[in-house]
Amino acid sequence: MKTTLRRYLPILTWGAEYSQRTLVNDLTVAAIVTMMLIPQSLAYALVAGLPPQIGLYASMAPLVLYAIFGTSRSLAVGPVAVASLMTATAVGTIASQGTPEYLGAAIALAMLSGLMLVVMGALRLGFLANFLSHPVISGFITASGIQIAAGQLGPVLGISAKGETFIENVHSLVKNIGNTNLYTAVIGFTTLGFLFWVRRGLKPLLLRFGIGERAADIMAKVGPVVAIALTTAAVWAFGLNNRGVSIVGLVPKGLPKLTLPPLDLSLWAKLAVPALLISIVGYVESISVALTLAAKKRQRVDPDQELIALGASNIGAAVSGGFPITGGFARSVVNFEAGAETPAAGAFTAVGIAIATLFLTPLLFFLPNATLAATIIVAVLSLVDLSALKRTYVYSRADFAAMLGTILLTLVEGVEAGLIVGVAVSIFLHLYSTSRPHVAVVGQIPGTATFRNVERHTAVTYPGILSLRVDESLYFPNARFLEDLISQSVASNPDIRHVILECPAVNTIDSSALESLEAINRRLKDGGITFHLSEVKGPVMDRLKRSHFIGELTGGVHLRQYDAVASIDPDVARRTLEAPLVNGSLVEAAKA
Amino acid sequence: MKTTLRRYLPILTWGAEYSQRTLVNDLTVAAIVTMMLIPQSLAYALVAGLPPQIGLYASMAPLVLYAIFGTSRSLAVGPVAVASLMTATAVGTIASQGTPEYLGAAIALAMLSGLMLVVMGALRLGFLANFLSHPVISGFITASGIQIAAGQLGPVLGISAKGETFIENVHSLVKNIGNTNLYTAVIGFTTLGFLFWVRRGLKPLLLRFGIGERAADIMAKVGPVVAIALTTAAVWAFGLNNRGVSIVGLVPKGLPKLTLPPLDLSLWAKLAVPALLISIVGYVESISVALTLAAKKRQRVDPDQELIALGASNIGAAVSGGFPITGGFARSVVNFEAGAETPAAGAFTAVGIAIATLFLTPLLFFLPNATLAATIIVAVLSLVDLSALKRTYVYSRADFAAMLGTILLTLVEGVEAGLIVGVAVSIFLHLYSTSRPHVAVVGQIPGTATFRNVERHTAVTYPGILSLRVDESLYFPNARFLEDLISQSVASNPDIRHVILECPAVNTIDSSALESLEAINRRLKDGGITFHLSEVKGPVMDRLKRSHFIGELTGGVHLRQYDAVASIDPDVARRTLEAPLVNGSLVEAAKA
Repeated sequence: MKTTLRRYLPILTWGAEYSQRTLVNDLTVAAIVTMMLIPQSLAYALVAGLPPQIGLYASMAPLVLYAIFGTSRSLAVGPVAVASLMTATAVGTIASQGTPEYLGAAIALAMLSGLMLVVMGALRLGFLANFLSHPVISGFITASGIQIAAGQLGPVLGISAKGETFIENVHSLVKNIGNTNLYTAVIGFTTLGFLFWVRRGLKPLLLRFGIGERAADIMAKVGPVVAIALTTAAVWAFGLNNRGVSIVGLVPKGLPKLTLPPLDLSLWAKLAVPALLISIVGYVESISVALTLAAKKRQRVDPDQELIALGASNIGAAVSGGFPITGGFARSVVNFEAGAETPAAGAFTAVGIAIATLFLTPLLFFLPNATLAATIIVAVLSLVDLSALKRTYVYSRADFAAMLGTILLTLVEGVEAGLIVGVAVSIFLHLYSTSRPHVAVVGQIPGTATFRNVERHTAVTYPGILSLRVDESLYFPNARFLEDLISQSVASNPDIRHVILECPAVNTIDSSALESLEAINRRLKDGGITFHLSEVKGPVMDRLKRSHFIGELTGGVHLRQYDAVASIDPDVARRTLEAPLVNGSLVEAAKA
Repeated sequence: MKTTLRRYLPILTWGAEYSQRTLVNDLTVAAIVTMMLIPQSLAYALVAGLPPQIGLYASMAPLVLYAIFGTSRSLAVGPVAVASLMTATAVGTIASQGTPEYLGAAIALAMLSGLMLVVMGALRLGFLANFLSHPVISGFITASGIQIAAGQLGPVLGISAKGETFIENVHSLVKNIGNTNLYTAVIGFTTLGFLFWVRRGLKPLLLRFGIGERAADIMAKVGPVVAIALTTAAVWAFGLNNRGVSIVGLVPKGLPKLTLPPLDLSLWAKLAVPALLISIVGYVESISVALTLAAKKRQRVDPDQELIALGASNIGAAVSGGFPITGGFARSVVNFEAGAETPAAGAFTAVGIAIATLFLTPLLFFLPNATLAATIIVAVLSLVDLSALKRTYVYSRADFAAMLGTILLTLVEGVEAGLIVGVAVSIFLHLYSTSRPHVAVVGQIPGTATFRNVERHTAVTYPGILSLRVDESLYFPNARFLEDLISQSVASNPDIRHVILECPAVNTIDSSALESLEAINRRLKDGGITFHLSEVKGPVMDRLKRSHFIGELTGGVHLRQYDAVASIDPDVARRTLEAPLVNGSLVEAAKA
């Protein structure tokens, strides 16, 4: 009982050991992460097509809930780029930006995604995330990064460029380029330049000034706050908002109120697929960050409990009027490097955001949207990894095809089509590749009882005996392949009287393959040929014994391939066993 | 050039060796198969919801085309039960039975299915049939058999009972049972009883009269012709058609005319999925019969060419006004047992059907529909194999779930839903089962350099070294499983300094798994642990060398697990190697 409670409420474990020293530490970390999270919250709310305060709302309750349920000591949850883009896409098909229906749908999406994650966690369905192969998720994130960056070029230039997909976005951008607002563009590009410099140039400079490596890293990460302060001041001082520079404007003060998503079944039905995709993509990103950071301190992360924690966080986001969130990479790294010792750091960050929401929103009035757009562009460009295309191409053409397909489809048709087709293609390619397993004709190595691929070794084969080794489990994708192969081999060689299947790499035989083996056995029997198995693994044999196959098998099941051959032709097998190791003439004689 | 031509036109091969003796033989076979095919053609046209002559049309051109393109010497193509039911379902959603649109759609379905099969054959896409796992196809055929039989109970009783699915059919049957026509029911049940007796009782009787085994078998198979002759005569003699017995009536005389399916793109789009399903189900049934019969005479069947042959046959069916066809089981067995030596027997059967269409259709005028329905029921009940459910349950619960699900869904929701969900479920279960591969902690067997599962053998493990053997290829469904497993193992055992992954059963490592291995290596490095591989197969290693992984690996890649351990702790490994084979105390000492 107590163990179960501890499993589902990790806070009971770390909370019991909490000390004053840990508290001071976590408070410091929270202050740093808050500085980083404020601009990100505002910016990603814009990516999701929502008012800026919704980003702040999504950065309070979820952090507290993750602190209670989460198993990672470093993960920082909140609004992230890809989930925000997916939210905009999903909700955009239901309502127009700026309407209460749009906000309601975003809240419903967070609720649905949260419920799905909790259910997946409770039923231990984390393996569902496996369906997203690496090429697909990597291609998808790259494409999302490109699409988000393209979407923010409009605000940077001060023009309105809309579009559901990257292609539509670029088209709209090119069409409206003439409406560029000079002041906005200057702010936008200056911020872009500054932020790029902060990423590349600031850290070496700080190091030269004698600031420690880790502190320099963290200072570089809060660069956006400086950009926000300076550009806000500039707009205010020069009244640029009267010269066409779009500003954030009035952000409602105060904490979010308890909200419930609209209880509209048809709405929930429409959001089901996007919610599932957001859940899985968010989980995959989050668990990967959590495992990486936990490994550095040999801490434990429970993948199933993480589903529950992310689910609870999303439900928290929903009931406090926020939108779908997940663990963020950059933010978690800062959390880790600043020295977060417990998930309490996250809860304190939530308090920091709450204070900002209560007291600092008036300061955001003159914040130019171009600055937020620039911070988004710089942040998401780190998601774009085109070199992965090349690496994957070199390693596997099939995986490359899945990755390129996902990228192109995401850019042209949108995030959902990209992901779904990517998953379908990678499952298809997987089934295709396992449908033609490697099968070797094996022969005996003279002087030994060992059998090896005759194409790679000088090995003896016996007339009348076909020895095949199949290097794959036998299941439905390849069941008929084996039937065809044996049927062709036997038809093209009328001397064959015995077929032996060596199974050292067969980890499982499913019902389809069992049916194929039975068919092979029956057909060989009709042709006057016996069928043997050798080197069948223990668990596979246990299961075969539960079928009629072993009873019907015309040959036997042998421990080793040698035993199988010896049971058919003891003389020849023994003579080869006793032959000197290097004896080409024997090999030739036996082969003929 | 000549070889290619021979590959695509098998008739060139067997045609060159054709002799007068073969001709006489094939003509005899054709006469027998024609007798069997006439009632089947008429009956399956009714199952498909088409006029009876369409069944005859579908039994001419396809047989000639299969004789030209087919590689099986025994396969008899034509209308079959399951494809007819699938046709009725697919076309039923587009038009009402009896309308020209219905017939047009059935013809378009045959054309589309034929084109798909030819394309699949030309591109060697036969592996697509692998997606239908055995439990799914077996469950589907059982459910189809039940549904067809239920659908024919109406005609047997002389009541009209319609329904898209089995459930609707039974419902309609029960509601209308009061309208049963006594004369029809007598004819129907007498025929049913007679046909069951022919199946079970006739053969022993014939054997007792000294008729040979094979001849008795064949005579039992033409039983339906006798039933047709007798019941037709009875209707004619007693004028039962005036007492409510539904009869076939006027069947148009003469050969089919050249027809083209309606060139309506939206129609073709609607038929695409059903056509694909019919193609694959038909192909799977057909190739299985062809391989079984070919094996008995050690003949060769080319699975890719069979796709082309079936495709050409369906295109032939379409242009001669027929509906989708495939190779039939019972009919092919009769063909084989009667002694068909070449596919020419099929072409001669087509001539037999043509003669029947030209001259015998007036004889069918008084044929009661109840007789045809009874022949269908007896024929399809052999498709129903409920014992497969039990066999599969004993062998594999997952496969049982897929089979039961397919049966229930087919009966409740219809053939397409049943098949599609069945395929999805079996792919899902396959990915699920491979997502948790068997992984064993291995230890050294004292006195040897062999490593085995410590849970099954008395084997020595070394403090600080975690040796794992993974019994499955590494690909995206299980990539993250390995990450989690190693991360948990290392987190729960702080003594570990080295992790060795033994890969003798790893046949492939895809990009996702490569990424996981890289992540594992990086994370272990962060935790001060080295990562080694052993027993990596040649092709897997060749590929790994094309990635950065081998360069970044903190440990080495070793030929044997022993070499990996010896590279870390040569003393301990050697001491265990030299230890006497039975030495419990050493084992205990080394384990502690």
